Amino acid sequence: MTPILSKTDAGALVNAARIRRGLTWAALAEHLDAPLVWTTAALLGQHPLTAVQAKAVCELLELEDAVEESLRLQPSRGTDPALMSDPTVYRFVEAVTVYGPALKELIHEEFGDGIMSAINFNIDIKRRPDPDGDRVVVTFDGKFLDYKW
Amino acid sequence: MTPILSKTDAGALVNAARIRRGLTWAALAEHLDAPLVWTTAALLGQHPLTAVQAKAVCELLELEDAVEESLRLQPSRGTDPALMSDPTVYRFVEAVTVYGPALKELIHEEFGDGIMSAINFNIDIKRRPDPDGDRVVVTFDGKFLDYKW
Amino acid sequence: MTPILSKTDAGALVNAARIRRGLTWAALAEHLDAPLVWTTAALLGQHPLTAVQAKAVCELLELEDAVEESLRLQPSRGTDPALMSDPTVYRFVEAVTVYGPALKELIHEEFGDGIMSAINFNIDIKRRPDPDGDRVVVTFDGKFLDYKW
Amino acid sequence: MTPILSKTDAGALVNAARIRRGLTWAALAEHLDAPLVWTTAALLGQHPLTAVQAKAVCELLELEDAVEESLRLQPSRGTDPALMSDPTVYRFVEAVTVYGPALKELIHEEFGDGIMSAINFNIDIKRRPDPDGDRVVVTFDGKFLDYKW
Amino acid sequence: MTPILSKTDAGALVNAARIRRGLTWAALAEHLDAPLVWTTAALLGQHPLTAVQAKAVCELLELEDAVEESLRLQPSRGTDPALMSDPTVYRFVEAVTVYGPALKELIHEEFGDGIMSAINFNIDIKRRPDPDGDRVVVTFDGKFLDYKW
Amino acid sequence: MTPILSKTDAGALVNAARIRRGLTWAALAEHLDAPLVWTTAALLGQHPLTAVQAKAVCELLELEDAVEESLRLQPSRGTDPALMSDPTVYRFVEAVTVYGPALKELIHEEFGDGIMSAINFNIDIKRRPDPDGDRVVVTFDGKFLDYKW
Amino acid sequence: MTPILSKTDAGALVNAARIRRGLTWAALAEHLDAPLVWTTAALLGQHPLTAVQAKAVCELLELEDAVEESLRLQPSRGTDPALMSDPTVYRFVEAVTVYGPALKELIHEEFGDGIMSAINFNIDIKRRPDPDGDRVVVTFDGKFLDYKW
Amino acid sequence: MTPILSKTDAGALVNAARIRRGLTWAALAEHLDAPLVWTTAALLGQHPLTAVQAKAVCELLELEDAVEESLRLQPSRGTDPALMSDPTVYRFVEAVTVYGPALKELIHEEFGDGIMSAINFNIDIKRRPDPDGDRVVVTFDGKFLDYKW
Amino acid sequence: MTPILSKTDAGALVNAARIRRGLTWAALAEHLDAPLVWTTAALLGQHPLTAVQAKAVCELLELEDAVEESLRLQPSRGTDPALMSDPTVYRFVEAVTVYGPALKELIHEEFGDGIMSAINFNIDIKRRPDPDGDRVVVTFDGKFLDYKW
Amino acid sequence: MTPILSKTDAGALVNAARIRRGLTWAALAEHLDAPLVWTTAALLGQHPLTAVQAKAVCELLELEDAVEESLRLQPSRGTDPALMSDPTVYRFVEAVTVYGPALKELIHEEFGDGIMSAINFNIDIKRRPDPDGDRVVVTFDGKFLDYKW
Repeated sequence: MTPILSKTDAGALVNAARIRRGLTWAALAEHLDAPLVWTTAALLGQHPLTAVQAKAVCELLELEDAVEESLRLQPSRGTDPALMSDPTVYRFVEAVTVYGPALKELIHEEFGDGIMSAINFNIDIKRRPDPDGDRVVVTFDGKFLDYKW
Repeated sequence: MTPILSKTDAGALVNAARIRRGLTWAALAEHLDAPLVWTTAALLGQHPLTAVQAKAVCELLELEDAVEESLRLQPSRGTDPALMSDPTVYRFVEAVTVYGPALKELIHEEFGDGIMSAINFNIDIKRRPDPDGDRVVVTFDGKFLDYKW
Repeated sequence: MTPILSKTDAGALVNAARIRRGLTWAALAEHLDAPLVWTTAALLGQHPLTAVQAKAVCELLELEDAVEESLRLQPSRGTDPALMSDPTVYRFVEAVTVYGPALKELIHEEFGDGIMSAINFNIDIKRRPDPDGDRVVVTFDGKFLDYKW
Repeated sequence: MTPILSKTDAGALVNAARIRRGLTWAALAEHLDAPLVWTTAALLGQHPLTAVQAKAVCELLELEDAVEESLRLQPSRGTDPALMSDPTVYRFVEAVTVYGPALKELIHEEFGDGIMSAINFNIDIKRRPDPDGDRVVVTFDGKFLDYKW
Repeated sequence: MTPILSKTDAGALVNAARIRRGLTWAALAEHLDAPLVWTTAALLGQHPLTAVQAKAVCELLELEDAVEESLRLQPSRGTDPALMSDPTVYRFVEAVTVYGPALKELIHEEFGDGIMSAINFNIDIKRRPDPDGDRVVVTFDGKFLDYKW
Repeated sequence: MTPILSKTDAGALVNAARIRRGLTWAALAEHLDAPLVWTTAALLGQHPLTAVQAKAVCELLELEDAVEESLRLQPSRGTDPALMSDPTVYRFVEAVTVYGPALKELIHEEFGDGIMSAINFNIDIKRRPDPDGDRVVVTFDGKFLDYKW
Repeated sequence: MTPILSKTDAGALVNAARIRRGLTWAALAEHLDAPLVWTTAALLGQHPLTAVQAKAVCELLELEDAVEESLRLQPSRGTDPALMSDPTVYRFVEAVTVYGPALKELIHEEFGDGIMSAINFNIDIKRRPDPDGDRVVVTFDGKFLDYKW
Repeated sequence: MTPILSKTDAGALVNAARIRRGLTWAALAEHLDAPLVWTTAALLGQHPLTAVQAKAVCELLELEDAVEESLRLQPSRGTDPALMSDPTVYRFVEAVTVYGPALKELIHEEFGDGIMSAINFNIDIKRRPDPDGDRVVVTFDGKFLDYKW
Repeated sequence: MTPILSKTDAGALVNAARIRRGLTWAALAEHLDAPLVWTTAALLGQHPLTAVQAKAVCELLELEDAVEESLRLQPSRGTDPALMSDPTVYRFVEAVTVYGPALKELIHEEFGDGIMSAINFNIDIKRRPDPDGDRVVVTFDGKFLDYKW
Repeated sequence: MTPILSKTDAGALVNAARIRRGLTWAALAEHLDAPLVWTTAALLGQHPLTAVQAKAVCELLELEDAVEESLRLQPSRGTDPALMSDPTVYRFVEAVTVYGPALKELIHEEFGDGIMSAINFNIDIKRRPDPDGDRVVVTFDGKFLDYKW
């Protein structure tokens, strides 16, 4: 009897296989017919895959059954705090630190007392060409939930 | 000789006057002819206002000169960590925690080694009507910067 | 021009007036015709009151207009971490620490991948007589939200 | 001579065997004729099992003796802080943060100076059907203990 | 309308009056006919006094009514972490750090799975003469509570 | 050449052997003719054993020489902070938090400016029968040390 | 008798007077005939000024004697951690985080085992024109100190 | 299928091979025809190497393919906080703590509201001979980025 | 009724008066006929003064009675953590970090299992002339205390 | 290809061999003809040994080449924070906490604005016989460095 491979370890194996085969995350998302950010996050361990999805990934990447089993596992979501200070991730943290209180004011002004759900939620990333340098455009899209007793 | 009113205190006075006059942040943004999130963040102390902007706000809200002087001050940006656990702000923190590593992978895949700037950057918030409940749509839009020696 | 009284200060004034008049939180909840925990939390600064509610409280307790204005204010929710180690509060923290992972497993087993909302949510407290010592019964009741893209 | 398998490792083996056999936590609780949350928490390492219970679990799941020995071990209770920020667990943390001071006020009002025990304590979770979306209902039920010299 | 004097401030006033009058904590405890550690802790803000006790203290020390009102208040218990590193307090912290796991083992061995209550609990301090130097003897005395569902 | 077995690992092996042989800590203390809390703490790694004591323990429990060598090692004292939040240990932490400042006042009142030593120190635990439930009685007994230049 | 004005407060008064008079830090440095970064840091409270320097600053800015007295005070150096996350300051923190271990390797390779002094040390900042955008050039210049017994 | 060797492990292998062959970081930088600090940081895991660079390093140092694969990997940048208190690294932290606010003032004075980029950025280290002891001269050179919406 | 002036505030007043009168700490120590480090630490709030000492200081510095009362107060010892990163203080922290484990080994080797007391303890500071630059010589002198049951 | 043995692991092997051979740190220091504290700290991983020293230690203790290679390695200095709370080490931390600000005042008074170097620095430990109990005498001896631009 062995424990199930951790989702962190499974994600590392998926990523290794992906890189060695020269596949992009976009290719994996297309293969799964799933959104790009969802697919990447899920394979890195933040969402469970369905049995069909896990099988499709592992067949494509020729990964063993233990990876497939792990990918289907319910995750404990979150990120090692050490990774949050990587500059590419940290800029998002900084933006939330600088603009968080303003976003809160504007959500209350527009919708009333409540929040943007982070569960009934999706996120997308696009490149927008710009003559002064292309831009990273990330959209957070969550259902408004009002405080309700 | 007195020190300059802190931007936190100035922001509290702006907000008090805004509420007492029944004005929205959107109205203030329109008055300044400036973006909505920028205006809100700036008045809460995260950006300096120009002399013209500071004067326009203080005249509209009948605030004293000390507020005007403070609004023009260069800020130390950031948020009291205690406010980051307010649920409306925290959902953004959680989204960055859950999706940050995936966004990092996809920025590198699409643009190469680098970051989304949080300086050459703007942010927008919209309501998107949805039959299952309207949605909060927040767009982060920053110039890609590549690691360059 | 003065800033709006902080909700912490307003809550301290409400509580002082409540104690000096010998009124219970239950009496205030009844006066507002609102749930007991909601009323207590709101008056301590965790929920905004409507104009009618704020007026009703301040008239009953003979509090000045500044308190009424503050009670209507949108709060930044949360608790000073120092108060979380008070033994009466800490037992709830301990229970979540000991049983949190089990609750997570059971939510996923019964409902699928998702959370109990803390927004579309109410909480109740009751005394249950027991020959071995009466019991504190606290019920958390939140809508299930599934991860949905 | 080998040390006793850690309860974390034993819990991971129980969970792996449970998932591979397609068994629910509810089925394990029924098999042990024990409360649902207690069973789940105990198998995850938060309570010791009796010799009979440990044997029953390991026979059902065909786990080796080392697991049985570990399940009977007295635990060090608590949760890796990293798991407390998983969104499904965090909503309980948030609820305690928002409502903790109110619960404290109401315990003192109803019972006097004291606490809800987290030891002479049980916890239950139910699904409550609701046309607006089913609800997660979690009940904390602990004996009141008054400060007594 | 004024808020109630904080228990920290009330404790500082009690202590100032006590020192200026040359009274010991033991004298105050005798005056209240209450245990020594309880009295000291209560006057420093860790326990509420009854109306009779608060009146007795304030009459003895000629303190104003605001102190009396504060002493009767339900406390938020705990200590500023900065005070925990004072050497006289820290030695208790160190003892718990060094011997805590052993005490846990021995409580479980003698009583079973449970805890020493810190609520149904008293504490006493004595001087024990010793030719090699007198000794501080502190006794923690709490009811055993077993984990019980 | 191998490093000396860590005292944590040695303690885990002692404990495993103790449990498998059905021996209590009290039996081990009696075997060593040493105080109960000292013995338990020492075997868990908080005190060095003499060569004679280490040999006696390892012969009784049939442990290998590497354990004996480790038990004699000078320890780095202290406890993994994660274990301090185990409820059975935490109640001692809580008691020190609630009563620490009072103990400090009373040590100064009775002895003058100084501390209770945590080095020239012993600690004892007893069960005291009580019709309302037996009690855990823990005595800290340390030499008074005055600040002396 | 009054305490000496804190250097933080003195710095805030200097800065307020500087801004109100439209003076740059460079102008103050020239007035003192002192290096630019040194002057700015000193006036913000990180270095003591000589009596002559403090007098010169306060005469120029028409500040009261209390400021002059404070500027001459020996500082406790360092920065409120909250200010270290301001984006303009944080980029220096990030650079040290990313390149610190490499700088350490190269100091050891070039100089041997030791450090760059932060005491026998100066720092300069320049603008370097660049067609792709002007550059901030900051030079740390410290004496090498080798570990020497 | 194996995961990719971590960049930390790869860096340790590069460093071991470098030391055993008696090669300096400067020699490696020359071999790669790349800047000195960049090369050292990259080989320690802070920058990805191109395929050509990774091959050149591994051939020179006779390292296996797994190291080459790892060196090409996109890093998560940052340093174990434990290493930031090494005295040689800490002096940089201290300098930023003492001079950070002054640098911020001077960047704003010279360039306006913005930052020194840590991405479009390079860093250099030189020895400057000095009769009073040679000096470590480290230059941070980053593009100015202004806050721009 | 007023609380006793805090020892921090009293220390700030002593220091202000000392500086304004041009007196050194050494002069104060001589005036009290007490050791230099003890005197400085005591006046900064780390030791209580006797009535005679407090009177002598306040007469010399013409300080009001409230300061005298405060100086006699039993302190809560310790330092604001923010001050521990001041470079002059931090070098002591660093030395303890680098050499602490070695000192522990050598205390055990020379004295057996125990500690250097920080209570029966004194500390002295001297200047030692040296042609390569004078040296700061600080001596910690504490009684050895062995672990004794 | 293998990485170099970590200095922590090398130190553990040196210590194991030292204990098994019944050698004191003083004997090792004498063998190396080096200062006692330096030798102990260096072998525990805080200083690099020369090739000659490393060889001499490893021959004496019959340790393998990998240890010798590691002992010559440049260290990352510092101590696992967990070890700083060991009582024998903590007393030094406590002394710095209680006396740090006084030492800072006296260094400035005697030498001017600057620090005691922790690099051009040595430390010694002695036993001083005393009829009231022998004393641990630790001397910190560092070059004074003044702030110099």
